[in-house]
Parts: sequence; C-alpha cells; structure tokens
Amino acid sequence: MPNAIVSQSGGPTGVINASLVGVIEQAKKHSKIDKLYGAIHAVSGMVKENFVDLTDISPERLDAIAASPSAALGSSRDKPNAEYCSKILEVFKKYDIEYFFYIGGNDSANTCKIINEMADDVDIDLKAFHIPKTVDNDLRTTDHCPGYGTAAKFVACALQGDDLDNRALLGVKIDVIMGRDAGWLTAASTLGQQRDDDGPHLVYLPERPIKIEDMVAQVKEVYDRLGRCVVAVSEGIRDVDGVVWAKKIAEEAEVDSHGNVQLSGSGALADFLSKKIKAGTGIGRVRADTFGYLQRSFAGLQSETDVDEARRCGRQAVIYSEDNDNGSVAMKRTGEGENYCVDLFLTDLANVAEFTKDLPDEFINEAGNGVTKAFKDYAMPLAGNLPKTDTFINDPKL
Amino acid sequence: MPNAIVSQSGGPTGVINASLVGVIEQAKKHSKIDKLYGAIHAVSGMVKENFVDLTDISPERLDAIAASPSAALGSSRDKPNAEYCSKILEVFKKYDIEYFFYIGGNDSANTCKIINEMADDVDIDLKAFHIPKTVDNDLRTTDHCPGYGTAAKFVACALQGDDLDNRALLGVKIDVIMGRDAGWLTAASTLGQQRDDDGPHLVYLPERPIKIEDMVAQVKEVYDRLGRCVVAVSEGIRDVDGVVWAKKIAEEAEVDSHGNVQLSGSGALADFLSKKIKAGTGIGRVRADTFGYLQRSFAGLQSETDVDEARRCGRQAVIYSEDNDNGSVAMKRTGEGENYCVDLFLTDLANVAEFTKDLPDEFINEAGNGVTKAFKDYAMPLAGNLPKTDTFINDPKL
Repeated sequence: MPNAIVSQSGGPTGVINASLVGVIEQAKKHSKIDKLYGAIHAVSGMVKENFVDLTDISPERLDAIAASPSAALGSSRDKPNAEYCSKILEVFKKYDIEYFFYIGGNDSANTCKIINEMADDVDIDLKAFHIPKTVDNDLRTTDHCPGYGTAAKFVACALQGDDLDNRALLGVKIDVIMGRDAGWLTAASTLGQQRDDDGPHLVYLPERPIKIEDMVAQVKEVYDRLGRCVVAVSEGIRDVDGVVWAKKIAEEAEVDSHGNVQLSGSGALADFLSKKIKAGTGIGRVRADTFGYLQRSFAGLQSETDVDEARRCGRQAVIYSEDNDNGSVAMKRTGEGENYCVDLFLTDLANVAEFTKDLPDEFINEAGNGVTKAFKDYAMPLAGNLPKTDTFINDPKL
Repeated sequence: MPNAIVSQSGGPTGVINASLVGVIEQAKKHSKIDKLYGAIHAVSGMVKENFVDLTDISPERLDAIAASPSAALGSSRDKPNAEYCSKILEVFKKYDIEYFFYIGGNDSANTCKIINEMADDVDIDLKAFHIPKTVDNDLRTTDHCPGYGTAAKFVACALQGDDLDNRALLGVKIDVIMGRDAGWLTAASTLGQQRDDDGPHLVYLPERPIKIEDMVAQVKEVYDRLGRCVVAVSEGIRDVDGVVWAKKIAEEAEVDSHGNVQLSGSGALADFLSKKIKAGTGIGRVRADTFGYLQRSFAGLQSETDVDEARRCGRQAVIYSEDNDNGSVAMKRTGEGENYCVDLFLTDLANVAEFTKDLPDEFINEAGNGVTKAFKDYAMPLAGNLPKTDTFINDPKL
C-alpha cells in the first residue's frame, strides 16, 4: 500500500493542530494508506526529507496535540517555485507517497494545486487535499475558516476586559488587531458586548478606507458623549488613497517571501494613532495596544466549536481522498443561532487558491465604523461561549 | 449605626472585584455597619459624593462582579493632597461614614494612612483599612499580592503559545511584559515551561541592568544553539547607568500624576529591541510584541487561587475593622507545593505604603537573565493550573 504525508503551512492558529489530529486519526482507517508521514516545517521539510512517523500516535497524545496552539509539525513561509515543487515530487516518489494533505491558507491551497498538476504532467499518482486554516477568515467558498473562531474568542475576551478597564480609568483606548486584507478578526472585537455602552465604540476595517482627520473627529464625538472611547482598528486599515497606513508609517517595511508587508509584530501603527488622536482631540489619557501574535497563539483558549470543526475538516479530507483526486474541504452552514451547525463539502482547489474574501457590505454599518447585527449572528456561534461580566459604574447613583 | 465606604484605586486587576465582593459580603455581617457605600472612581468619587449603595446586592450579582476583570467601581490615578483629604473627611462626616476600605497598591495604602491620621488629628472616628492589589506583586510585608496570580497566568499562557509559535516559524521573538520597578510579572513568563528547550530562553528584569550589546550577544548564543530564541523583557529594564530604557527611548515620555513615566500602552521599547537585535545578530526573522493592558484586563482567565484569596482579603479587612483602627491585610504562606495555603494577618499601613519590593536575589539566576527553581516554586501555586501542550517537532526524525 502507498503512503501519505501531512503538513502545516503559513501562520499557525489555535486549532491547526486539531485538523492535523483529524488527518492522523482518519488515515489509520483509510483503505489504501499504509504509513502517514509528517513533514517538519512544511515544504521545507518535504525537500529535506525531514519527516516524523505519525502512523501510530496514542489517542491521549493526539488529544494533547489537538489542544495545543501553533503548528505541531512546524510551519514555513517558503513559497515553492516550479523547481522546488519538482524536488518535492521526487521525494514523494522515493517515499511512495500518493496522498498529500496540506493544512493552510490560500497560498497553501495554491501550492497543493501546483504540485497536483505537476504530478499529473509527469504521470505520478498523487492525490492532493487542502484543509483550510486561517485566523483571518478570508478564504473563499467556505462559510468560515477553522482558526477564526478561536482567534475571535481571544479578541472578544480582550475587548471585554479592555472596555471594563477603560470604564475604570476613562480616556481613549485603541486596540490594533490582526487582519492584513480583511476585517473579520477586527469585527470580532464586538462579540462580547453586553451593555448598550460597551466598547468597542468604533471599529475600523480594511474594507472602509478612512482619513485620519475623520477618525479623530469620530473618537472625539464618542468621548464627548460617554467620557471615554474604545477603538478597534485593523492592522490593515487603509487611507482614502487605498494605501495601507502601516505601510505609510513603516520607515523600513519588512517584506516576507510572499510579497506581504509585515504588519504584525510592530507597535508603530498603534503609537501613530495614539499620537494623532491625542493631538487632534486634546484628550489627556490616550493608550494603544497592538495585540500581535497572542491572537493566534495564546494557549488554553480554544473555541469549542472551532476545535471540533477543525478536527472534522482534517478527518473529512482523508475521507474525500478515498474517492477523489484533489480538492479543498469547505463548510456550509445548515443551521443558525442555537441550532448552528455545518456540513462539510469538497470544493476545487482553484476556488480557494490565490484570492481572499472581504467582509461583505451587509456586515458593516452605514457609517463604515462598526458592524451590523447580521455580522454578530454570523460570528457568535464560531467564537462560542464568552464570559459574562458586570460592573457597578452604570448603577443609579445615590 | 454608622456607615462604611469602599473604593478601588490604581491600575485594575483581574481580581480586584473579588476583593470588593469580599468587603460587600462581610459588611452585611458587621456588628456596627449600617449602609455600605461604593465610591465611583476612588478618591474623585469621594469628594464628588458620587456613590452607589452596595448594602443589598444579590449573591448572584456578587458572583458575576467577582468574575469580572477591572474595577467595578471605577478607579482613579488622583493622588490626593492634604486639602483633597480634608474634603474627603467632610464628606465622610456628612454621610456618617466611620469605616473606610480601600483596595489598591502602595499609593492607596499611603492615602489610607494619611486620611486615617488626619481623622485622628481632628477627632473624627474613622477606621481605615487597605486591601492589597497589584499585578506587579511588589507590595511589602505580604507574601504576594492579589492580582498577581491572574496576571501571571495570562503571561504564562501567552508565553506557552508564543514559544510554540516560535518553534513553528523560528527566528527571534521578544515579548515586553508589565512591571515598572520589579520583575515579578516578567519572571512569570517561565511558569508554563514543560520541555527543556521551552522558552522564554532569556528573561530580562529591572533588577538586573544590562547593556544592549550584552543582550544581543546572549540572543545570538541561544539562536545559534536552538535555531530560535524567545525573550521575555520587563518594560522596566534598565541600562547599566540605571536609567530605564523605555525612558531613554521615549521622545516625549508621558508622566502620570504620581510622577511615573508611562511604560505601558506604547510599542516603542519592543520595536527598539527588535531593531537592535536584528541589526546586531543578522537574524532575518525578529518579531516583538508588547503585551500591554491585556495582562491586567483580559476577561475570563482568572487564577482560581488568586480570585479566592482576593475575596478572602476583602472579607478579612471587614473582620479586622471590628476590633482594630487601621491596617493593611497581608498574606503569610503556611504550606508549599501541593499543600500550598496562606494565613491572613493585619499589618501597619506604614509597612505597605510608599515602598515597593524587588525580586529577591535567590529568584534570579547567576547570569541575570533567567529565574531559579525557587522562583517557580514560589509562583506556580499563585498562577494555578496552566494548559499542557505537546508538539511533534522534538520527535525523532525518520
């Protein structure tokens, strides 16, 4: 019997290991898979034959892996070119690998597609399946992406606490949230809201370019009304000329191998906004945090829905490989609210590769600085249960 | 019967509301307290007579308040002078307040002491009690401070995930952690370590001034050995001339009313270190995060030990007020490890006011860039249960 390989690529998430565990569990039940190899550090481990044997891992260890954030096999930002891919195929041939499971974002779906097509061209029997993951939730075709719910839960809990902190000490608080091209994760900052005056009071998304002067005026309006203001800002927000602000600000923008400017891992945008708002409003206490990598890596804070779905997607990719040549696992929502549930389906790799998905217009308010009820209805089930909080500040005074 | 007042001051924590709830619960059982007022926004609410009635709050609501981060009564950074304090005494007299419970750090203990002494001078009957809180854990006399365990848990979970993320994508990761004068919270970054090579690999504390060149060399040494390096840095780290780096870096340092430079709420130190380490080592992937206010405000992540102790401290302050005139509630450790437990005792306000407590030498390693087993034995019970994680990266390769 032939063998299979699994790997993880791109930025890790809180549940990418649950998808890996799904693949490992189901591969044992597959009618035509002998061994399952795990490639360490994605495509880089494939060309270097840096493999671990995942065929017989105890259920206890699988549960521990599924509960751990980050990529248990390591990851990579390498974008393989044709030569790189043909080297991968040579290694697959050497190890008698006929099944390839790749957990990642749209770049990974594209890699899957290229390797699958190259295999066809040289008449190698290779089945290639993509399992979606991204905290950004910006993959096409699927209702949502494994990884988003857990990151959304982190952001929602962070904003719940931050709003209470801002109630206690007043002033303006700005939080810069991940999301290079789409505002999905920034929008999730609203999911923990309970009271009418709970922050974030303003939400700025890459989908709605804005002038700094307009943002300052909107912050001042909220502050004048409530005596405080909590602002959620996507790291990918754009000026009205369409240029990403973080790019404008960065003196030396660091570019990764996919041609993406590094937006995370720097406090520059938060500090810039803080200074501008302070100068523009005259408010004394203006603070800014950049949530950074914690959003995708914080340990012990998975959304239960998310971790279950991620594991299902991993298992389903292996099931699809029994009767299909290639594809990407996607989710379709079949129930809403308390009856929330999803069905899985197989979609063409081309439907996921390369492109991304913005927040649709119906999820963004008319003013372009907040979300709608439709967004909350969409995202609440994904983040799962959030803490309930209380405060005496809103109680009637003596 | 006379009345009592309670308030919360300084930077909020994840369990300062549990102490408040302890006061509320016990005040109902006090033999000489009629009504319990809550002053909104600390001393500022006292002079403005901005009170809520806390005499009859349902047990369900008290539990919700105790589980909520931040200060449910609001807080303040005002440092009252003599005139301010005499205005407070006037208001206390007007409302027939003879019991004053103040939850805060060393500045709050000092305010408690001043108001208590002024009351004595003008022959007003006022009992004043301080209940400790601070994520910084730097109050004297007490074994540790309510608020520290919960913040330590956040930092430990963050570093667990961050270390796994750094394993997956390699390079150098720097995390800037709260702690103006003492390294207690930064030291807690080590509490989730499970494997020999788990980060943080280097821990820089305010107690051990360091030259940037030495830090760069130490990071390079770890990176050359492990292929990666996770660094935990206190926001209060100092250069060898004793000057806080963040102060040197800040072009326009913002100073609060206690004369403290604002260290949190800016990514400048992290970005500075990131640039220096990148330039000094030539390592391509260097990232830095500043954890910021999430460390004290994140919702839904309390340490059970911490929340229990915070509530006990609140109750005990009220119990002490039956037979004492003033003081601060403190904790003494009476059991270690699995038998960890604490007794509460009353100490003089002067023992807590004004001064702070550094990490003792026995908690810092000889090289000055890490913690000792003694520190972990001290801090582990305070943070409570931490997630267990696993990874395949350390498995034997094929």
